[in-house]
Amino acid sequence: MSQPSPHNRRIVLASRPHGEPTAENLRLETAEVPQPAAGQALLRTVYLSLDPYMRGRMSDAPSYAPPVAVGDVMVAGAVSRVVASQHPDFTPGDWVVGNTGWQDYSLTDGSNVRNLGAQLKHPSRLLGVLGMPGFTAYMGLLDIGQPQPGETVVVAAASGAVGSVVGQVAKLKGCRVVGIAGGAEKCRYVREELQFDECIDHRAADFVSQLAQACPDGIDVYFENVGGAVFDAIMPLLNAKARIPVCGIIAQYNATALPDGPDRLPALQALILRKRIRMQGFIIFDDYAPRFGEFLQQMETWVDQGHIKFREDVIDGLENAPQAFIGLLKGKNFGKLIVRVTAE
Amino acid sequence: MSQPSPHNRRIVLASRPHGEPTAENLRLETAEVPQPAAGQALLRTVYLSLDPYMRGRMSDAPSYAPPVAVGDVMVAGAVSRVVASQHPDFTPGDWVVGNTGWQDYSLTDGSNVRNLGAQLKHPSRLLGVLGMPGFTAYMGLLDIGQPQPGETVVVAAASGAVGSVVGQVAKLKGCRVVGIAGGAEKCRYVREELQFDECIDHRAADFVSQLAQACPDGIDVYFENVGGAVFDAIMPLLNAKARIPVCGIIAQYNATALPDGPDRLPALQALILRKRIRMQGFIIFDDYAPRFGEFLQQMETWVDQGHIKFREDVIDGLENAPQAFIGLLKGKNFGKLIVRVTAE
Repeated sequence: MSQPSPHNRRIVLASRPHGEPTAENLRLETAEVPQPAAGQALLRTVYLSLDPYMRGRMSDAPSYAPPVAVGDVMVAGAVSRVVASQHPDFTPGDWVVGNTGWQDYSLTDGSNVRNLGAQLKHPSRLLGVLGMPGFTAYMGLLDIGQPQPGETVVVAAASGAVGSVVGQVAKLKGCRVVGIAGGAEKCRYVREELQFDECIDHRAADFVSQLAQACPDGIDVYFENVGGAVFDAIMPLLNAKARIPVCGIIAQYNATALPDGPDRLPALQALILRKRIRMQGFIIFDDYAPRFGEFLQQMETWVDQGHIKFREDVIDGLENAPQAFIGLLKGKNFGKLIVRVTAE
Repeated sequence: MSQPSPHNRRIVLASRPHGEPTAENLRLETAEVPQPAAGQALLRTVYLSLDPYMRGRMSDAPSYAPPVAVGDVMVAGAVSRVVASQHPDFTPGDWVVGNTGWQDYSLTDGSNVRNLGAQLKHPSRLLGVLGMPGFTAYMGLLDIGQPQPGETVVVAAASGAVGSVVGQVAKLKGCRVVGIAGGAEKCRYVREELQFDECIDHRAADFVSQLAQACPDGIDVYFENVGGAVFDAIMPLLNAKARIPVCGIIAQYNATALPDGPDRLPALQALILRKRIRMQGFIIFDDYAPRFGEFLQQMETWVDQGHIKFREDVIDGLENAPQAFIGLLKGKNFGKLIVRVTAE
């Protein structure tokens, strides 16, 4: 366990981005380490999760969660250790996971974190394969996608925290699985390590025809986490009664205006009608919180048995979080993006 | 029972429409009355159903069913009587319902019709409230829409064959029901006769603000059967976890090109994600055929008890079917549009 440092570094929203976030939108501040009052515990952040949804919180456009206020600490899930406690449920040395933000230290009254006890073999996994991204993949695929053996499942960002789990769970369910990823190295990893049936590089000039060739029987489940040009290529391949769980549209998060016309909203409605498609958005903890235990038990078993592989892209130093996050929105990470704020 | 006439009039697809169908796209032909071979029965059409989906069959664009070939008899559901039979399951005088087309007579081998027996009190109802449109309303609302007591349900074409049933069933389920219809007379009927809570005239200059005022708690279920400008007004009012069964988009059936931009397809994706919306297309008999019996029993009970009211717009004469159908696509009918081909 690390020793308390005398300062609390924290990254706050300096200004709202217009389009792609820049380094100027985020500011590193230094404050005193807070002291826990009665009923509080002081947490030292060890691993910080960086995820695409955070781009939405930087804007004040309508979204599913309130925006971060300018000047406030950026939101994030993190794994931390208790360093001091005036709360009966927390003891120094305990690991906790919860929404504690982009900072070295935070206070908790217990409402925003889950106590994992003093022994924890793989803390960072709680932010990826055994955390929000893995849970998103598991519930979206199984509850909304309802893949059947022999069906074709397609997922983009296939080497990422969500897509990699979607595809591997679909393989366990007996599906043909086609991934989409950016670049030859990620595609090789998805095919060879994650054992997807195919993985197509969305940067390839003939991406659209490669995708069609990889889906000779059409697409039954498209797990939507990117939107944009990938969705355009997916649409004509969708089978009757296809299911589209929508967990994200990262390709659109930096958009400042709608694309030029024609207006294809009626075309999407017509496709949904003609092909009897089910398209459904979900916000993982809002919609499925009571099923987290079921997920965790199943996923830990699969990981332990080697059925689900995962990759973490670990960046050292809170001060490097802004650039890492900006890169995440451009697909520069390779695996679950995590910031190691301090050594375990 | 009418006597066989010596000729079989039939309306064939003369040419494919470009945009709105015109009288020239449909042609009345006269042929010999066919004679039933062994295993066949000859049917005399009594009531012919005219429905918006038929516009799709006139085009050869991809759709959920193959198009009518140029020169072929237009498809339609109809209620007919057996006039001659060489089939053991059919006796002259039996009523049947099935897809027999826009013509005076047809042959059946039994595969395309259901025998309703010699006694039938209300034959035309089998084409409306107790037929495809009622079944569409019932399954789409209850199975996909899943309305809960106290929720707000909105349906357009509210005086029509589908919309009128959607709204009345939603009232039976304890919902607040807002209809949308074209013109003061239809709106009055929807409010006063069908007992919807509100009905808004989509032709009103302040339609958008009237709709918002009629839905002070937002919209939980929007039964989509029109698309177009109505859907545009619906979108901002949708609540989190709203359900949108999509059974038709009549506003788009005559479109020859997509509307001008911007491209709002990404906006619809973002709405589905942000509000966790479920949007699902369905084709009634393809998706729900095994549940027709359940529907029919429940709906007959409701109709007999006066809980579900309906209105039929009956046109006399097969020769008038083309103009009636063209008017249907413009909302000129008032209630379920039916052609009386011959007297009962």
